[in-house]
Amino acid sequence: MNKPDILNNVRVVLSHPSHPGNIGAAARAIRTMGLSRLYLVNPKCFPDPAAVARAAGASDVLDNAVVCATLDEALAGTSLAVAVTARRRDLSHEMLPARGAASRMLEFAAQGEVALVFGTEMSGLSNAELDKCQLLATIAANPEFSSLNLAAAVQILAYELRMAWLDEAALPAAKAMEAASFEEVENFYGHLERAMIATEFLNPASPGRLMQRLRRLFARARLEKVEVDILRGILTSVEKFSKK
Amino acid sequence: MNKPDILNNVRVVLSHPSHPGNIGAAARAIRTMGLSRLYLVNPKCFPDPAAVARAAGASDVLDNAVVCATLDEALAGTSLAVAVTARRRDLSHEMLPARGAASRMLEFAAQGEVALVFGTEMSGLSNAELDKCQLLATIAANPEFSSLNLAAAVQILAYELRMAWLDEAALPAAKAMEAASFEEVENFYGHLERAMIATEFLNPASPGRLMQRLRRLFARARLEKVEVDILRGILTSVEKFSKK
Repeated sequence: MNKPDILNNVRVVLSHPSHPGNIGAAARAIRTMGLSRLYLVNPKCFPDPAAVARAAGASDVLDNAVVCATLDEALAGTSLAVAVTARRRDLSHEMLPARGAASRMLEFAAQGEVALVFGTEMSGLSNAELDKCQLLATIAANPEFSSLNLAAAVQILAYELRMAWLDEAALPAAKAMEAASFEEVENFYGHLERAMIATEFLNPASPGRLMQRLRRLFARARLEKVEVDILRGILTSVEKFSKK
Repeated sequence: MNKPDILNNVRVVLSHPSHPGNIGAAARAIRTMGLSRLYLVNPKCFPDPAAVARAAGASDVLDNAVVCATLDEALAGTSLAVAVTARRRDLSHEMLPARGAASRMLEFAAQGEVALVFGTEMSGLSNAELDKCQLLATIAANPEFSSLNLAAAVQILAYELRMAWLDEAALPAAKAMEAASFEEVENFYGHLERAMIATEFLNPASPGRLMQRLRRLFARARLEKVEVDILRGILTSVEKFSKK
């Protein structure tokens, strides 16, 4: 894959952005770093003149922005979704600083679609949204004042992606195995949950945090397509018996 | 010199900023990265409510901003002034990418005052202003759209200064989840193999490379003790049914 195509495999996803000005500023930020694909999950005001004004010439990014109803829709077809978050959560996915996360993203982008996911201005990403991602990226901000503007956070991550991309040496050889897509992994989780209910390991009336823990485990492994097939084969063999 | 004092030796100088909103956004940007000293050379509108609004809580930076009539005044007492510029000029100073320039600045900041100088929104720094600086810093932006917002450029340089200062990213210590021991993981593999035989997914007479593939998957995840317990619980629930 040509180098330019690698950056074209990166989606920048803004979940529930409140201020159209931030959408425009984010569009400008990603364009300056050679990215172009903006996904907006349920934006409060879009399209909006304030977005166009702050985009300052990057209005093509706004024109081509994909508006989605859910985060699932925005992540469809991706093999890696990186959530940008200010703090470590309880029971969280692997967390890397922005620089390391950018390098990791490019490795995956060399093979397919990846997403960089930002939460809403006031409260960031919800736990349910974080569960859909496989890696956390954090900006090591001043602990006494860590409140980055949304577009400023987008700017830093887009900058790190560009720096990683420019540094050819940082790009390791593409992995030989094909990563599983978002949908394939989500379908596996669904299958796993049904199988655990069938074997009575999981009580759907009081599920606790079992699925969250298992998601975290498999997110760390970054499943390959072949592995998802094997795991689902195991689950099918389990269900066959549990239904007897 | 203590590490915190080093960042206190960095002045961020905005020369002739046109938009008060950008001054506020720049104040917020530097504050998030642990810097605090803003110098404004002949700002068009300052103080201004738009600056306070965009500073979003970093108004102490605005309150303490030093307004100067000339760049000379803003640079008085510094031992290094780094000019941020999009392009190489004729007969220019040494030019470094943002990351290298940030490292160089910190070396000087350990000994005395340094300045990071940004030009006006429309045209950047004049040649006369560049002449007052000793080093140029550039952000390797997209050549087809290199127009960074002023505060976004401030954010990137401040971020690089902070990264250089942190050396090794000060990530919150990884949560102390205890890794599973070699024996625990091996016992899990044994259990997994027995369960797959019980559900007839694995034929012990022709096992192929199934176990090898599964080992590879879980090795990548680096299992924790709690996770091994959960996985073995699932396997036990499976065996209970398969033996019926």
